[in-house]
Amino acid sequence: MKKRNCLLGQSGGPTAVINSSYRGILDQVKKSADLDRIYAMRFGLQGLLAGKYFDLTEKSEKELELLQNTPSTVIGTSRYKIDHYDENEEDYIKFFNFLEEHQIAYVFYVGGNDSMDTVAKLTSYAEEKGIDVRIMGIPKTIDNDIVITDHCPGFGSAAKYIATSVMEIARDSRVYDLKNVHIIETMGRSSGWLAAASILAANEKLYAPDFIYLPEAVFSIDKFFADVEKKMKEQKAITVVVSEGIKDKNGEYISAGKSTAHDQFGHKKLGGAAYTLKPIIKENLCNRVKAIKFDVMQRAAAHCASGRDIVEAYQVGAEAVKAALAGETGKMTAIKRISNDPYQVEIIKVEAEKVANQVKLVPDKWINEDHNGVTEGFKDYVLPLIQGDIDMETENSLPVFSELETGQ
Amino acid sequence: MKKRNCLLGQSGGPTAVINSSYRGILDQVKKSADLDRIYAMRFGLQGLLAGKYFDLTEKSEKELELLQNTPSTVIGTSRYKIDHYDENEEDYIKFFNFLEEHQIAYVFYVGGNDSMDTVAKLTSYAEEKGIDVRIMGIPKTIDNDIVITDHCPGFGSAAKYIATSVMEIARDSRVYDLKNVHIIETMGRSSGWLAAASILAANEKLYAPDFIYLPEAVFSIDKFFADVEKKMKEQKAITVVVSEGIKDKNGEYISAGKSTAHDQFGHKKLGGAAYTLKPIIKENLCNRVKAIKFDVMQRAAAHCASGRDIVEAYQVGAEAVKAALAGETGKMTAIKRISNDPYQVEIIKVEAEKVANQVKLVPDKWINEDHNGVTEGFKDYVLPLIQGDIDMETENSLPVFSELETGQ
Repeated sequence: MKKRNCLLGQSGGPTAVINSSYRGILDQVKKSADLDRIYAMRFGLQGLLAGKYFDLTEKSEKELELLQNTPSTVIGTSRYKIDHYDENEEDYIKFFNFLEEHQIAYVFYVGGNDSMDTVAKLTSYAEEKGIDVRIMGIPKTIDNDIVITDHCPGFGSAAKYIATSVMEIARDSRVYDLKNVHIIETMGRSSGWLAAASILAANEKLYAPDFIYLPEAVFSIDKFFADVEKKMKEQKAITVVVSEGIKDKNGEYISAGKSTAHDQFGHKKLGGAAYTLKPIIKENLCNRVKAIKFDVMQRAAAHCASGRDIVEAYQVGAEAVKAALAGETGKMTAIKRISNDPYQVEIIKVEAEKVANQVKLVPDKWINEDHNGVTEGFKDYVLPLIQGDIDMETENSLPVFSELETGQ
Repeated sequence: MKKRNCLLGQSGGPTAVINSSYRGILDQVKKSADLDRIYAMRFGLQGLLAGKYFDLTEKSEKELELLQNTPSTVIGTSRYKIDHYDENEEDYIKFFNFLEEHQIAYVFYVGGNDSMDTVAKLTSYAEEKGIDVRIMGIPKTIDNDIVITDHCPGFGSAAKYIATSVMEIARDSRVYDLKNVHIIETMGRSSGWLAAASILAANEKLYAPDFIYLPEAVFSIDKFFADVEKKMKEQKAITVVVSEGIKDKNGEYISAGKSTAHDQFGHKKLGGAAYTLKPIIKENLCNRVKAIKFDVMQRAAAHCASGRDIVEAYQVGAEAVKAALAGETGKMTAIKRISNDPYQVEIIKVEAEKVANQVKLVPDKWINEDHNGVTEGFKDYVLPLIQGDIDMETENSLPVFSELETGQ
């Protein structure tokens, strides 16, 4: 009998729309007469290798529908990197034994840069050993730092939450007739896509944030202070957005509090870049300073998700199944932007090994000359990604989420 | 000529629905043939006394419509307490001169406990001096701590944001197969209504938060640690919600980091109660601990407002105008709950001086015996307050806010 079962897994951090990718995969699997059962790794590859998995095949349509608007990941994840099989074959043997035992011929692995390394390695091993399996990667990350793909599912929703919240905070900051600075920190250790997306909050009625600092440009505390000081001569309320990963000229994270750019600016780490910068303004310029972190809300705020992001997350999942059925393996589905107006994309397939372990940074052309903001070109890039309303089921005005396995 | 003009002002912190109260006031003023112009204090009473005000009468219908879903306060606010006129009459003279100059006979003052003290004092002064003016207070505060009124406009929206976000965070916290604790801090210096509202996030599918600590009960770090430690024997992910104002048995704020309940638990203030508690868990129980603050988002998140809250905020504004026209003065509009199912309320008027400077705490009956959660009775109280969708105008999938004067 030909093997007809599938395995689904995730690796890396959650987003608001990963579950929508699962739904795309599950729907497509159910549509295919060539496919039968679908198993899920419980807590990623690490969980599977420890014997943790479950069967998604019989889950109710209702639960699967709810996936569309459920944040996080209902199957769980891990951050587990496998060695190359030349160094350590154990995981590979265990993994492919599991596939054999469960008659699995299709693997769908949702993740970011590191996860595509896993896809590439597993595929390469299977080919070398002549194992009949097709392994497809599906992109996800709020960080938006996967190469080749125009953007990553998860990013649009985080961008929408950030832009919406910055709009609200900027208005909140203007209620008193007092000078004040709000320093808002987004996620983004290596790349500044999320911080950059806050530019969408600025419009002609109220232009905020005033400054955006990305890890792609060297961050100078002196320059930051000068920027804010100068702006405060023009207006009372100043909104700054920083990426958690901003670094000084020595490559030290500002959040580490070691930057020696200015003697009086020596502060210990208090939980991030914004908290490190807060006392610098507070002690030297203006008493009212708030450090605000969007924390996990930015990746979990399904109630503020981008409708388009949900749809695209679904598509990269569904297309991965189609590609696998068509014989492709070792690839990742990716989004290619055909045009911006009207916004049109195409789902393409790229070699997982070309994506593996790369990081896509915000390009220079989209960072302004002063290194304290982004350009109109970036705005044109990001605006289409947050479009579209969501259709979230609610009960008593609160979201109804899928609870496949989250109860622990 | 009879004086026919009105003055609008605000005092204290913003909410997501104060602007809806303004709209209620403005609509009602425009409906009345007895009323003419409406002025607004720019940045509250303090601003007005410094000569800052503007005329709202000619603002476009469009801008006024947008008020309904605009957070913050478009006219600005201040935290200014006036002395009793026996001690210092200067502010009173200035204030009533302004009314006289602008032919103002009606004053509408939106605020909390302190603001109602101002309403009471101004009214008392006017009566003593025989000044023909009617002064009405309109309640607002996310803290929900105004006495007599069943609840306060602004609270329902903050409660909805908190419940929604805690649901999302709780799911995010369950993605890894690792023990972890999320300590989420809400606003609420004196009262725990906001922290308590997080109970709405808990349902039979996923019961989180696990613990809620309010300022109304003495907070013991040892007890807190024991609660979390015990729960961790049953499950991996633990969600805790604390009010920023939790205090130890000596009345010291936990956020001050001075609590000496346990020798090893001596930590400096790192920006709030959650940040103070984080290392206690991290160093003694479990390495993965997150301190999350909802910060100003909880009072500014208009995108997640309660439809009912918006309507009620409008009503307490509109009813204040009607009451003033009917001859009432020195009162605050308040909400009286007639029934819970179906939810029915009535807008009543209460003496401002009965409300002034009081603080309504979460009653004992709604705090559980262990002092680490709230009761079903509280849930019945708060659930109706978050109901109702909002109808927010958007452009490019982002909110369109009224920008009356926020540009500074």
